[in-house]
Amino acid sequence: MSTTNRLWTLAARPQGMPKEADFKLVEAPVGEPGEGEILVRLEYISVDPYMRRRMMDGPSYADPVQLGQLMVGAGVGKVLASRNPKFAEGDTVEGFFGWQTHALSNGRGVRKIDPKLAPVSTALYVLGMPGMTAYFGVMDICKPQAGETMLVSGAGGAVGTLVGQIAKIQGCRAVGIAGTDEKIDYIVNDLGFDAGYNYRGVKDHVARQRELCPDGIDSYFDNVGGEITDAAISLLNVGARVALCGQISQYNEESQSQGPRLLWQLITKQVKMEGFLVYQFASRWKEGLTQMAQWLQEGKLKYHEDIVEGIENTPSAFIGMLAGDNVGKRLIKLHAA
Amino acid sequence: MSTTNRLWTLAARPQGMPKEADFKLVEAPVGEPGEGEILVRLEYISVDPYMRRRMMDGPSYADPVQLGQLMVGAGVGKVLASRNPKFAEGDTVEGFFGWQTHALSNGRGVRKIDPKLAPVSTALYVLGMPGMTAYFGVMDICKPQAGETMLVSGAGGAVGTLVGQIAKIQGCRAVGIAGTDEKIDYIVNDLGFDAGYNYRGVKDHVARQRELCPDGIDSYFDNVGGEITDAAISLLNVGARVALCGQISQYNEESQSQGPRLLWQLITKQVKMEGFLVYQFASRWKEGLTQMAQWLQEGKLKYHEDIVEGIENTPSAFIGMLAGDNVGKRLIKLHAA
Repeated sequence: MSTTNRLWTLAARPQGMPKEADFKLVEAPVGEPGEGEILVRLEYISVDPYMRRRMMDGPSYADPVQLGQLMVGAGVGKVLASRNPKFAEGDTVEGFFGWQTHALSNGRGVRKIDPKLAPVSTALYVLGMPGMTAYFGVMDICKPQAGETMLVSGAGGAVGTLVGQIAKIQGCRAVGIAGTDEKIDYIVNDLGFDAGYNYRGVKDHVARQRELCPDGIDSYFDNVGGEITDAAISLLNVGARVALCGQISQYNEESQSQGPRLLWQLITKQVKMEGFLVYQFASRWKEGLTQMAQWLQEGKLKYHEDIVEGIENTPSAFIGMLAGDNVGKRLIKLHAA
Repeated sequence: MSTTNRLWTLAARPQGMPKEADFKLVEAPVGEPGEGEILVRLEYISVDPYMRRRMMDGPSYADPVQLGQLMVGAGVGKVLASRNPKFAEGDTVEGFFGWQTHALSNGRGVRKIDPKLAPVSTALYVLGMPGMTAYFGVMDICKPQAGETMLVSGAGGAVGTLVGQIAKIQGCRAVGIAGTDEKIDYIVNDLGFDAGYNYRGVKDHVARQRELCPDGIDSYFDNVGGEITDAAISLLNVGARVALCGQISQYNEESQSQGPRLLWQLITKQVKMEGFLVYQFASRWKEGLTQMAQWLQEGKLKYHEDIVEGIENTPSAFIGMLAGDNVGKRLIKLHAA
């Protein structure tokens, strides 16, 4: 096989917001699958907030990407050649293939996708990791009850757009916070959130949130952290639940960020707060996929893919996503050789 | 009835640590019980950290004590006269009677105590609110598993001394943090904690806690908050549980205290953190009392009462407790008229 693989490696550990020079595009011949391996030509690559943390050294929930190594991430594509009995040439598969056009894989963590059921890109979104993050975070941690108010930060992003819609399906008032007026228009007018506000330029988040959540906040799904979250915690009702999914406002901080001490408020309100990673729910993935697929079919869930074309644009698309440029799920579409 | 009641009212809202002048001792004739009421002569009054918050104005989980009003708190005593069919003269009762020598009560929230089962003072401690706080906080929130490490702050106080002993009964390594060497000696050598340290003068709490919790922290029972808690959170293991019971280090702060933002760590470690008030578990009080009484009888639980005599010493005893003078449960013993 003489095709060329194009892959992005980590060139430097970013200081603050990553820049394109922190990545390096490398070309290499596509290898032949060894015994037990498959060769996949990627059609879509996912860029997600968690990747920012994987670029940093030091302890986290997963090992950092090493300098000179392939950037990590999920992708979906077609099997070009297989020496693994579980996969056949032509299968569509989803796996943790990294930022590249072609991947060799031993098949671990790779799942087959039926392209007739839904567009294959949904395996990276509603019917993939971000969808499961929203589903289990809402259903298992926020535990919404009809008539309650759920607030979600990062509401215009891949996970947040789904969170608010699931809250609506459960009979809640869904309120979202995002970083552009366009996103607020999208979540309220296209997705059916009850209310939302653009956090940029807002001085008094408590006042703004109180206005949109007049009965207080019964559950809070947090993708962002920082001052928005400080305000939300001050408005929690007794017995509220907080699902900590991400803290994207903190990822580019070079030093430990300071804020008001919040724990006393958790006592007075008897709050349950839980940090989670979607992989905790791995054993229940099928339940989540089945339910999300059903809501999709019933027209209860809408989604928007924010697609950037070309492997060469992966770093800029990723950096833009961290800055909040995307509405819905940002994906890289590849024109594979 | 011509006896005189002596009662402490709130004279001023404290700035920082309360001082004796924030309270006023008042004398008043003891009243006659009206229809449905009982008259109780108090034998013991409890002083507890939560009272500091009740002295402050502003929103909390319970209404503040108003200036000129009786200071709140639990007590145990004998019924002198009853016009309530549920209580008879001579009954020993526990209730929220306030800082006074004699109380009129309509009987709501008042329970009868059998003085033959245990010393009546235990109704304010192991077999009362602090005991139930330790029991439900450990069993329902910390959810200890044999072989795990449980850390408790405020370990020399009423709740903390019980928390560590319950952790030991559950097969855990119990590590305590307290504010005097005497308390550390007591919890380790008398109560059987595995280790402990005196936080005063310690600069690097992370290093100290890591030394005493070499396998990390699986559950943390927090009475204190502040820097001790910042350190504990950094040492939590994946899947750890945090029971937020109190934040005594913060109660005398006049302005919102700042600290490092902790929420990202809760995500990476998939931590469940829960703020609780013992009254959440009111419907299961009997279960808790039965279990604690059984452990007492089996000799698995020890307790120490730190007794100050005389109603006139209540404010100073309370202030001393806030400063950490007590080992175990501080009680006021009254020589009732």
